[in-house]
This record gives sequence, C-alpha cells and structure tokens, in this order.
Amino acid sequence: MKILTGLLLLLLSLSSEIFPAQDAGSGGPTGLLGFHNSAAERKIETQFLAVPDPALAEEHLRVLTQAPHMAGSVEDKATADYVARKFREAGLETEIVEYRVWMNYPLEISVDVTAPANVTMHGPSREQVASGLFQADPFQEDSRISIAFNGMAPSGDVEAEVVYANYGTPEDFDRLEQAKVDVRGKIILARYGKSFRGVKAFVAQEHGAAGVILYSDPADDGFKHGDVYPRGPWRPDSAVQRGSVGYMFFYPGDPTTPGFASLPSLPENKRVPPEKAQQLPAIPITPLSYKDIRPILESMSGTAAPAEWQGAGPFTYHLGPGPVRVKIHLKQDYQYRSIWDVIGRAQGSEMPAEWVVAGNHRDAWVYGAVDPNSGTAAMLETVHGIGELLRTGWRPKRSLVFGSWDAEEEGLIGSTEWGEQHAPELERAVAYLNMDAAVSGPDFSAAAVPSLKEFVRQVSRDVPSPVGGSLYEVWHSAAAGKAVGLQTEAIGSTARIPAAQLRPDVPVGDLGSGSDYTVFLQHLGIPSTDVSTNGPYGVYHSAFDDFAWFKKFGDPEFRYEQQMARVFGLEALRLTDCDVLPFDFEEYANEIGVYIRDAEGKADRRFGKGSLSLDAADKAARRFAAAGADIMMKQQHETKEVGRVNRALHDAERALLLPEGLPGRPWFRHAIYAPGRYTGYAAVVIPGVNEALDSGDRDLAQREAAALAAVLNRAAEALESVH
Amino acid sequence: MKILTGLLLLLLSLSSEIFPAQDAGSGGPTGLLGFHNSAAERKIETQFLAVPDPALAEEHLRVLTQAPHMAGSVEDKATADYVARKFREAGLETEIVEYRVWMNYPLEISVDVTAPANVTMHGPSREQVASGLFQADPFQEDSRISIAFNGMAPSGDVEAEVVYANYGTPEDFDRLEQAKVDVRGKIILARYGKSFRGVKAFVAQEHGAAGVILYSDPADDGFKHGDVYPRGPWRPDSAVQRGSVGYMFFYPGDPTTPGFASLPSLPENKRVPPEKAQQLPAIPITPLSYKDIRPILESMSGTAAPAEWQGAGPFTYHLGPGPVRVKIHLKQDYQYRSIWDVIGRAQGSEMPAEWVVAGNHRDAWVYGAVDPNSGTAAMLETVHGIGELLRTGWRPKRSLVFGSWDAEEEGLIGSTEWGEQHAPELERAVAYLNMDAAVSGPDFSAAAVPSLKEFVRQVSRDVPSPVGGSLYEVWHSAAAGKAVGLQTEAIGSTARIPAAQLRPDVPVGDLGSGSDYTVFLQHLGIPSTDVSTNGPYGVYHSAFDDFAWFKKFGDPEFRYEQQMARVFGLEALRLTDCDVLPFDFEEYANEIGVYIRDAEGKADRRFGKGSLSLDAADKAARRFAAAGADIMMKQQHETKEVGRVNRALHDAERALLLPEGLPGRPWFRHAIYAPGRYTGYAAVVIPGVNEALDSGDRDLAQREAAALAAVLNRAAEALESVH
Repeated sequence: MKILTGLLLLLLSLSSEIFPAQDAGSGGPTGLLGFHNSAAERKIETQFLAVPDPALAEEHLRVLTQAPHMAGSVEDKATADYVARKFREAGLETEIVEYRVWMNYPLEISVDVTAPANVTMHGPSREQVASGLFQADPFQEDSRISIAFNGMAPSGDVEAEVVYANYGTPEDFDRLEQAKVDVRGKIILARYGKSFRGVKAFVAQEHGAAGVILYSDPADDGFKHGDVYPRGPWRPDSAVQRGSVGYMFFYPGDPTTPGFASLPSLPENKRVPPEKAQQLPAIPITPLSYKDIRPILESMSGTAAPAEWQGAGPFTYHLGPGPVRVKIHLKQDYQYRSIWDVIGRAQGSEMPAEWVVAGNHRDAWVYGAVDPNSGTAAMLETVHGIGELLRTGWRPKRSLVFGSWDAEEEGLIGSTEWGEQHAPELERAVAYLNMDAAVSGPDFSAAAVPSLKEFVRQVSRDVPSPVGGSLYEVWHSAAAGKAVGLQTEAIGSTARIPAAQLRPDVPVGDLGSGSDYTVFLQHLGIPSTDVSTNGPYGVYHSAFDDFAWFKKFGDPEFRYEQQMARVFGLEALRLTDCDVLPFDFEEYANEIGVYIRDAEGKADRRFGKGSLSLDAADKAARRFAAAGADIMMKQQHETKEVGRVNRALHDAERALLLPEGLPGRPWFRHAIYAPGRYTGYAAVVIPGVNEALDSGDRDLAQREAAALAAVLNRAAEALESVH
Repeated sequence: MKILTGLLLLLLSLSSEIFPAQDAGSGGPTGLLGFHNSAAERKIETQFLAVPDPALAEEHLRVLTQAPHMAGSVEDKATADYVARKFREAGLETEIVEYRVWMNYPLEISVDVTAPANVTMHGPSREQVASGLFQADPFQEDSRISIAFNGMAPSGDVEAEVVYANYGTPEDFDRLEQAKVDVRGKIILARYGKSFRGVKAFVAQEHGAAGVILYSDPADDGFKHGDVYPRGPWRPDSAVQRGSVGYMFFYPGDPTTPGFASLPSLPENKRVPPEKAQQLPAIPITPLSYKDIRPILESMSGTAAPAEWQGAGPFTYHLGPGPVRVKIHLKQDYQYRSIWDVIGRAQGSEMPAEWVVAGNHRDAWVYGAVDPNSGTAAMLETVHGIGELLRTGWRPKRSLVFGSWDAEEEGLIGSTEWGEQHAPELERAVAYLNMDAAVSGPDFSAAAVPSLKEFVRQVSRDVPSPVGGSLYEVWHSAAAGKAVGLQTEAIGSTARIPAAQLRPDVPVGDLGSGSDYTVFLQHLGIPSTDVSTNGPYGVYHSAFDDFAWFKKFGDPEFRYEQQMARVFGLEALRLTDCDVLPFDFEEYANEIGVYIRDAEGKADRRFGKGSLSLDAADKAARRFAAAGADIMMKQQHETKEVGRVNRALHDAERALLLPEGLPGRPWFRHAIYAPGRYTGYAAVVIPGVNEALDSGDRDLAQREAAALAAVLNRAAEALESVH
C-alpha cells in the first residue's frame, strides 16, 4: 500500500482517471496489511465467505420481527433467547447479561386541539394504511404495537398556543426571534430531520418552550420523495417516527448510571435520582404523524413561513403563535426495567486478553425489520460463518466477542452499560465493529476512525457484490457518480458525515453518534467502524418497518444481507487474526491537521487573525503524522518487534482520550470526535476547540487547544516508542 | 458621465463599495445627457412630476376593471372610450383605431375523466374562493367571466391516456423519452412556468401528442409561495391561468396578416387562411386549475416523477401514461372580430416626424387589474401630467404618441397591427416605451436595449420612491442585496432575463418577447424599454386579478402607480425633448461582444475548437464599440453637428435589422434579440447564430455569423459617418 503524503484533496471529483482502482494489500495483489502469511489468511476467509446464506438470513429476520419487541418486553426477551441459541449453535461461549435501567413505556399519550372551535384533532391515531390496489400491511393490526411516543420524554400536561419551528435547530429558533415570534410558554411543532430529536427538545427547552410536538413532514421522508407504503418505500401519512429524546450529548446509557453499569444488584441509592439525571428532558415531548399534525398546521396564523421552512403539506405554513391551541397529555410509565444483552465469545488462542468486539442492537420500537434486525440477521450469518470455522478447529488469535445489544433505541443503553461494566478488560480491546440498520437497500456506506478507513476499503475489495464484481468496485463506481458529500442528511438514523477526504478514494465517513459504537469509541477510545447498505427508506421507527416492507423494498432476495454478513465477518477475522494491527495513523493525523486548520480559520473569522494559537496542536499533528508514516514501514514489513509495534499502535489510539473529558460533559473523552451538542448525530471534530469557539469562549478554546496538543503529542510518543 | 471601457463584470457582487452611486448626467450633478440646457428641462420635469395623482390612478383602475373586458367585447370597447376621453381631456389628438382580427372565444370547453371508473372530474370549474375568516372576492360571481380557455387554441375532440410532462420544455420531453414514456397520441399534462405556454403546445405537437392540458401547480404560484387569495396574494386552488398558445415565435399579431395590417377594409382573400396560419396550433390545448387537475394527477401510474418534477400536490407525481384517460372537448368560436387601439398624439414642435411612442395594452382575460390596467392607470396619469404641460403652452420637440393597445393577450395584436400599418412613419421613430402589468408590488425592474440601459437608470434617479429617497436608490439597495440574476423565472408575464452585465450598476434586463414592444423592436428596429414594479402576484390571468386583489395586495395606496406614471413620463419627456439622443452604443457593442464570445464557446464545445469562425463578427463588434465611444464624446459636448449625430444614432439602431430576417421566421428581423423558439418569453441573443448552433447546423451558423458581422459593420459605419 502506497502512502500518499501531504495529498490534500478536499474537493475531489472522483473520476476514474484521477482515482484508478488500486492494487489491494501491501505485498502485491494478494498481500494483506498486517499479515505475514496472507495466503493462509485468505484460505480461512474463503472458507468463511462461503457460509453466510440468504435463506437463513431471511429466516432470522422473520423470527426476530414476528412481534413488536421494544426493549424490556417479553417479546424482546424472546429475541434474546433466539440470538443466544444461534450463538451457542455456532460454538460461542454465550451468556445473556441483564441490566436494570430507567425507561418509560407510554401509558396515556394524547394531543388534542382545544381552540379554535372549528379545528378538531385527537391524536395520536393508529398507524394504518388502507390500500386499494396494493396489498395492505399484514402486521398493522397487532395490538402489541405501542402507541407512538418518545423515549425518555417526561410525563406532563401542558396546553398552549403552537409555534411552527421548522426543524427546531438553533438557527431556526434564531429566525423565529428575528420574526418576533415569542416561543416562551408555547408548544413547538418541529419536523423531524437535520438534527437529532433530543437536540430539538433541548433547544426548545433552552428557549423556554412549554412542550414539543415532533412530526414527520412528507417533504422529508414521505410522498415528496416517492410513492408511500404500501405502494412504495416512503412514509405514509399515518406513520409516526418514535424515538428517544434523551439528552445523550451529555451521556448515553441508563440516565441514572452515567459512567458505571446498571447491574441488577446495584442499589437505588448508588444511582443518580431520575429527577436529577442530566439526560432527561424537563418538558413534555411527543411525536405525531403528518396525518394528525395536518389540521393543526393548516389552521395556524401569523407570519407565513420562509420558503425553506415550507413542508410538503398542500397549504402555506405559518409560524404562529396560534390561533391553534393544543393540549398535550403524557402519562409515562417509568420504571427500572430489565434489558438483556447477548454476548457470545470465541476465546483467542494467542492473545486472549485482546478483544475484537462486534455488535448490533436487537431491540426495536416496533418490528424493526431494517432498524435494527437487518443487522441482527446479518450478524447471525456472520456468527454462522465463524461457527463453521470453529468447527474445523480454527481459533482466532485474539478473542472475538459478539454483542447483541438491548435498549439502543432508548439511549444506547445495552452497549453503554456493558462497555462501562467491562471498561477494565476493554482497556486492551483492539477494535469495535458496529452495524445498526444494516440493510435498507443496495448503496454501501461506511464510517470509521481515520486509522481504519483504508482497512474498511480493503475489506470491501474481497467481498463479492450481488450485482457482480467486488463490493469495492460497485461502491467505487457509485461514489464516482456523485460529489464527495456522499451521505445525505440523516432523517433519523445514524448519520455519517463525509470526512475530511485526504485520499483519492471512496469516502469513508466520520463517526458521530446515534449508534452503539459511542461507548467504545468516545468513552473508551477503542477504534471503531460502522457499515451499512442503504436505499429509499421512509418507514424509520414506524410500525411499517416490518418484514413485509423489507421483503418488498429493502432486500427482497436477502443478497445484501449476505453481503453485510460477509463484510462484518471479514472485518472481524482480519482484526482478530492479524500479526500487526492495520491502523493507519498517518491518515488519521493528516485528517486532524485539516480539522485544526479549519478551526484556525473559524477563530480568525470570529476573534480576528491570530487571536487563537493552534500552532502547538498543528505541530503535534505533524509529529503524529510523521510517527504514523514511520511506524507504517514497520507494519508493512516483517519485523521481530511485532509485539512492541502492536502495543504502540494500541496506545496511540488510547492516547487520543482526554483525561478530563470534554468541558461540561466528562463522559465524552475522545479528543477528536464527539456528537455535537446542537447537531446530535453528526460528529463534531476536535470538539473541545470547536465547541468553545462556537460558544464564543476564546480562553476555553485556547485551553482546549493545549489539551489537544498534549493528546497528539502523547499519541505521537506512543508511536515513536518503537524506535 | 464617465464611460467605462472594456470593463467586464459578468458576476458582480453589487456591494456599495465596488459600485458607488454615481453622479447623474454628463455635465455634473445636474447635467442631463442629451440636453444643452439641463436646467430648462429640469424645470419642465418638475412641473410634470407634481401631477400624477394616486387618487386619480385608483379611479382609473376602478373604472377600467369594473367588468371583464376581453379584447373585442363591448366592455373592451367601453374601456377604449374611457381612455380616449382621458387622452382628449389632456389635449392629445386622439383616435380610436379599429382592426378586424381572427380570434377565438370559448363556446364549449370541457375536460372529463373517462377512466378508471373510480376517478371522476368534470372541468373547468368556476373560479371561486369560499373563505371563512377572510372576505370573499366581490367580483367572482359575475356571469361575464369567461370560461377558462386558451387563446388561439383550435376546436377539437380528443380522448387519450395522460402523460405528465413537468413544464413541457424540450428537455422535459427528452427526459420522458429516456424514461421510455411514449407521448405519441397521448394527452400531455404540463404545468405553467419556465417557458411560454405556446412553446409548451408547440413542443408537445412536435412530439406527436394528441392534446395538451395546461395547469397551475401550487409549487409555482400557489400555496407553496405563501397564503392564497383572499388570505394572501397567491393563486387559490380554483384559479385558472388563461392565455394565448399562439406560436408567436413565428410572428405575432393577427394570425391571418403576418407583416401587414388587419384593416377593416382588408378583403378576406388578401389574408392567410386561418388553416394555413403558421401561428395557430394544430392540437387541442386548454387550461385547468390545480383543483381540477388534482384527481387526475393523483390517480396516475407509471414511473414516479423525478424529484424536480414533483409539484406541490400532496402525493407522488407519476409520469403515466394513464391509467387515467381524459376527454378534451373544445368548441371555439373563431371569427374576424373588431378590436380597438386608442392613439393619442402631441405633435412635435421641432421634429414632428420623429416619434416617441409610449404604450400599454388595455384588454384583459378577465378584469386585468394588474395585467394590464395597472399600466393603463399609470399611463393615464402620465398623460394627465403631459396634458398639464400642454396647458402651459409647452410642446414636445419630437412628436409624442401614446398607444392603448388592444388584444395583446391573444397575440400582441393591437400593437403589431398598428406597427405594421405605420411602418413607414415609424422608420423615423426615436424610441418605443412599454409598460404592461406595470404594478403588482414594490420591486422595480426594467429591461431595455443596451443603448438605453443607462438612460433608464438616469430616469430612475429623478423619480422619488414611495419609501423615501429616489427610485434609483431604492432599486440600487434592493439589487445590492441580491445576486445579479435579478429577475426570476417568468410564471407567465413578460420575462426579463438579466443582461450580460457590463456596468457595475443596477441590472437592466434584455427584452425577450411577451409584450407590445415586440413589433417595435424586433420587427421595426426601434430601441425600446419596458418598466414595471413587482411583488408577490399569484393571480395572473385568472378572475382574481381584480380591483379587490389590487387594493389589498398590489398597491393599496396607489403610490407605486404614481411612481410608474412618473417614470413613464420622464422617459417620454427626455426622449421627445433631448437635443441629442442619449443612446449609448459602446455599452451595446460591448454586450454584443460578450454574446459573440459565449457563442464561440458554445460552438467550440459542440463542434470542436475553431470549427466556427466568429472573428469577423467580433472584429465588427469592437469597431462598433470604438465608434460608440467616439460618438459619445460628441453626444456629451455641445456641437454644431447635432442633426448629423442624431441621424447617425438613429441609423445605427436601424442597422441592427437583418434585411432577410431570421432563418425560418422573416418577421423577426432584429440581429441581436429575438424570442426563443423554445423558450418563448426569454430573449435569445444573436439569435441567428445561437439557434443555428442549437439545432446543430454549423453551416447555417457560419452564414448567420457573416450576416451578424455585416449588420455590426453597418451600425459602426452609421456612427462613423459623423467624422
């Protein structure tokens, strides 16, 4: 593998001329970075790749999605039992791990219009599609489908005039202020999209709103994009997006145990009382469908909404306030509830204390065919493949640990509690590999820490695509047809923003938040990846994300399920079996260099030129890049120092943690990536510096710049230790 | 006035730093280009500016719009009588001029859905707004409101499956072909906007469609933009855009008399038989409201429309064909009908054979409050002001001629017939000044031949704005807030595209077609201007463009009416009274130079570098520019050669006519501007060359380039004659 030094291609046209498909590996066409004997590894991989089976993936998905299985329910426990059985069948040491966590179910949820007299609305309505020509949804009548609600929303009653706040971002609230619309004491109507829903709630609360109604505008994932379910894959009028509104940018996991595990034995007096938990919103928040919100929106008055605020409803949107008044009544059933992670382990033969963890959550708001069980089904076929290897006597060199996480939807709880519980052992972990809503269509997408971006590309070269050729080739030609900004805005699910693109190759995004890698990367400093394959998908977090939708629109032949099982498995095999870890720190350091220069520009614009010195950080980043290039020589060529090199690579990743964490949110310790406080899913890069700049605190920015420089110097030192 | 030479600022940020407000005139702050005695002229102008009266403008508009007054109706004749009376009261020699022209009224117009059984629609429905909170429209019940129809559409019956064709542009039809949608024998549904409706019909006919239904999508001028009438100024669901679908890019005016006047005495055997008239469409075309089209659009099948094709209807748009079948039944009442231009004249005291013509049409599809009678009311107050000057004994140096044109809506008929009739006298005309829908809001906009662009700016400096300061200052600061592409796409009315912007000043657009300057500029070579002041206006060509709408949204206090009366009057006064014509040919020639270089680039891309030689044209344009700069020295400084200079300036304008006209459409003779064959309203520049390039005919392009060079050399010669 040729290392491109100093190549800064931020706005690449990914045409094939400037970006030819490269030879894989370091040692010629069949060489694999990190392996002294690539041929032996390829033999194992070939055996593995033959196993994942579309028919079995379909069977897994059918079983997992046969009933709504919200975290903590008996149906959720049944899915844990199924996954545990499959893990055991594959020969993994398997356990079901229980945590007791603070979560709400909905008891009474209603939204009613109380004025004017000619407007009536009582919601939320049932999610139903009445279809003439098209087959109706076969699952929509199940009485176990929960009423639509927001996880982590409080109980409460509030009645007030409504104000339309577009996506409810800080900029949207600024614009309301400019329009002299007073939001204090009002109920905010905000549409899903652009930002994490918990951020919408937080911003509304900060601005003094009395409550928030979230809804799905058909401009964002409904008829504006294409035919709605069951005719097409987009959101029908009655479908509601559920979802957590927890303030996870403070900390994810059980709101009552930040930084430690919610073991069933943990006494209540060791927990943060819920009323003091920073993660829990203070004002009532609840979701509605477009069908329910329409009579409200349509009857509003006040200034007409700006053009960009206009949704797809067939009327002019108005800002309000009122004249429509709405009463929100929320009675949540909050309790400490049991949830169940399933953990399956294949003990490492040579380095058992070094773990490669691969995980996917299992709980769903309703049926969860795409989110998350397309990932669970693929992971079970990965495990199936690993099981077949184990049956031949093969053992991974490092320990391979699969996690089927629970209660991700409520706040990444299952993964967070397990990560917090096993923090000491995870100190030696090599990597965390994530899938979430793994399959909703054919378009492959990946995100990773920069040290693993090239690794993900390499894996994709060795997985066949359902449409012929390698996954890498298909991915490459799709990317060549687009601008670099590959990943479009998140409508709700995990958002991956395009990274600072330093390599002339297919883009691999940065990790923000919104899925289970959060505790591993951002709390524990374990390098992570996240992979999925996507398509038109408008039924996110609604009752219609079910087996019928998936079979018709998501992956009718389960070939992408098979592909993702193979990708996930190859990632796991290479990281457990490699002689030398394949981390590319030169790329990492160069990306950080771009972040630093961007922040410098921002500081210059904000405070004047030279007002913030990032020279020390920049110098440290260059040192880190040079050390990364040096150690790559050792990674690429057989050496007697394998142990020292691996230790250095491991330590360099861990060195990127800030000992004190980020200002105001110590749980988040990663110096390079964090979920934005005001964006939610998307990553904020070098968050200490950038968030200080955004808040106008130059002194804090300078201190954070120093902390960043220290972190980078420590990372560089770790790599230099092998000289 | 400083002439900026060679300054090429195509993409200007119109900030005040780079574009300071300049001193007016050539002779210091009070100097007026073209006047030896600016002070005397300013005295006259001050007297004039005091006269136009908002209350009187309101009274004019109320009278003119009291009934629907389609061209040729008794109500239209009544408006002619009113205008003639006002002209006479002002002391103008006044006549009502009758023409007999081929025009249709609707007898039976219907569109019905014939399949599938569950879709029903019978249109067109009446235009009505039922309003709860808002006052209903007081004019909507008048039985004289015509059924919605398209002027110049033929009678005919057709039944076929429907295809959705977006805006019905050539590119849209290309895209349908790519999507393998066969439009032959189908009924095309096309939304208004982007192109002239006659072009939509022509393109559909060229592609073998059986019929066309035009409709107004709320994405283009309805609720997507803001509140609909009567709550707001935008198009309500039931409002239909009427309008001519004549193929006016071949020739405008009476379809049976291309190039000559439709005098009442003209025998029928001297006319082109209607069935042979190139201007008349062959297939049935008729308009519907969004309310009527909705059940059709909503029930269509086939491929989902591309995202940009999706209108604002609350459903996914589909291309078809079908399954919806529609039957169009059109029975038009075509006859030779009388129309009435009103001509008012103030004979010139020094150069009576040199005319300055100022005009506005008077006929309307229904009430025509904005289109066109906001212009008529303003023009009547201009005439009022001129009348007050005449009362003092003042006489214009050149003859001042006001025209109140009829039957503009059907095909620019009244102005075209009058222009064709008076072509010999108009050979000596100095300028044509146009208004059409003069007032729909506060945003001033102007278009002109480049030789008059600076003239229009100068006029605007001396007219006060209703919001304080001069019109120029308000216009300037509005323009500074925008990118240069000032004028947005035409939804229907006269389109003005931003010109090649050579001066760092407020942009004045180029003249395309769609209003009454067409015959004067493009057939007779008379330099023209067009002015208006605009705002949110969604009721174009519907029954709701009435006095109630205007009073509520257009110009409630008639202050912009007053402003436009003043602008129009100052333009007329300066051109009738100037000693030297204020034409700036250096600007004209430089703009032409830009057009030539653009065409060269297009030819290089299309046929390969150097495949088309525009060197001769480019050289001629440079010669013309140099001659323009030279003669401007004479225009700016008092000289004994005034007569020779004026003659040269006049001849230079006329020299821009192509003796043979444009290929395939000899009526259009202007070498620099023509309405596009496939765009309709927007100007095509150096149309001979550009349209030949667009059609892929390189030989024709080369011949047209030679013709262009000849024209430019003749224009330069004309200017050089004063040496």
